[in-house]
Amino acid sequence: MPRKKDEKLHALRQQQILEAAKECFVTHGFHQTSMRQILDASGISAGGAYNYFASKADIVKCLVDEERTDIELLEKQLKSTKDPLAGVAQLVADMIHYSTYEDAVLAVEIHAEACRNAEIGRLTSEINEQIQSLILEAISAGRKVGTITNDYTATEMTEWVVALFEGYLGRIASDRSLQPKKLAKIAKRSVLRILAATT
Amino acid sequence: MPRKKDEKLHALRQQQILEAAKECFVTHGFHQTSMRQILDASGISAGGAYNYFASKADIVKCLVDEERTDIELLEKQLKSTKDPLAGVAQLVADMIHYSTYEDAVLAVEIHAEACRNAEIGRLTSEINEQIQSLILEAISAGRKVGTITNDYTATEMTEWVVALFEGYLGRIASDRSLQPKKLAKIAKRSVLRILAATT
Repeated sequence: MPRKKDEKLHALRQQQILEAAKECFVTHGFHQTSMRQILDASGISAGGAYNYFASKADIVKCLVDEERTDIELLEKQLKSTKDPLAGVAQLVADMIHYSTYEDAVLAVEIHAEACRNAEIGRLTSEINEQIQSLILEAISAGRKVGTITNDYTATEMTEWVVALFEGYLGRIASDRSLQPKKLAKIAKRSVLRILAATT
Repeated sequence: MPRKKDEKLHALRQQQILEAAKECFVTHGFHQTSMRQILDASGISAGGAYNYFASKADIVKCLVDEERTDIELLEKQLKSTKDPLAGVAQLVADMIHYSTYEDAVLAVEIHAEACRNAEIGRLTSEINEQIQSLILEAISAGRKVGTITNDYTATEMTEWVVALFEGYLGRIASDRSLQPKKLAKIAKRSVLRILAATT
């Protein structure tokens, strides 16, 4: 029964190519990276590699798909927090805290690509909408239990939270001297302060 | 004395090429736009156009330089506001309010380019530092007069303000249905709330 082993090997090689692609995109950018460069960096023979990905766009699709797993984790974490306000603040803090410089540059690169390439744009919108609906749901729950303010609409607050998170991610990509851990703390405090119900 | 007229014509043609370049970068992205395409879009003959810009990088340099004029305006406005807290909040609101979808996509595109191209990176860092030092100065002034909080350092607050502004700009580039005017209002209120001295 070699099938299971084959599947494992396939997944491993796919991951190898994805990691190589990330590195290339961060260093050279999406459009200046050729499939050839990705394959060279991954150490997989050119002939074999096309079994895994037909094109660069396919690789980006897979990178965006990887985020889905992250979102599932975020959802679990958010739903396990008793106070939705604390949950949203912690979610934003964690997303910033664990963003490396490379993650941030890759996000900026994919963002730019999504503005022009309709297919990539659709994929990233889908992911964004998933994150936004998670946050929106938590904010609505927080308003029901009275810990989140009614000063803004739930949609406005969600958009604000996402802008703040994405803005910090962009700053991390622009300035290597910034410390994500420190930024995460301030982001968290500001989310708590903006979203909290005024008493 | 034809010199003055020549200068005017030169500036006009340069502007024509810059506007064409912006359109091309927004539609196709920086790396998929050729000098040929920019020149075709500008309606200026290929032979003549190289008198204005030697390369695409030269054009981006000029686009970044254009921002310097905007910063001077912001500086004047900020310095004419009596209360530094209100000044910073209004600055952020104005920057968001007047950002069109095209401005936002161009900003995302230049941001991605700045992450990889050291020359463009230096130029955008310079502009960012100018904006940041403006905001930092206003925040320090607001702390002196007691309207801005001491809960965070001036640097932390500046970084937060810039992240929020850039984040909203990124959102405008991602989602055409967003209304910059509405976002500007909420951004302003949140800047006032986060930066205000707690009494």
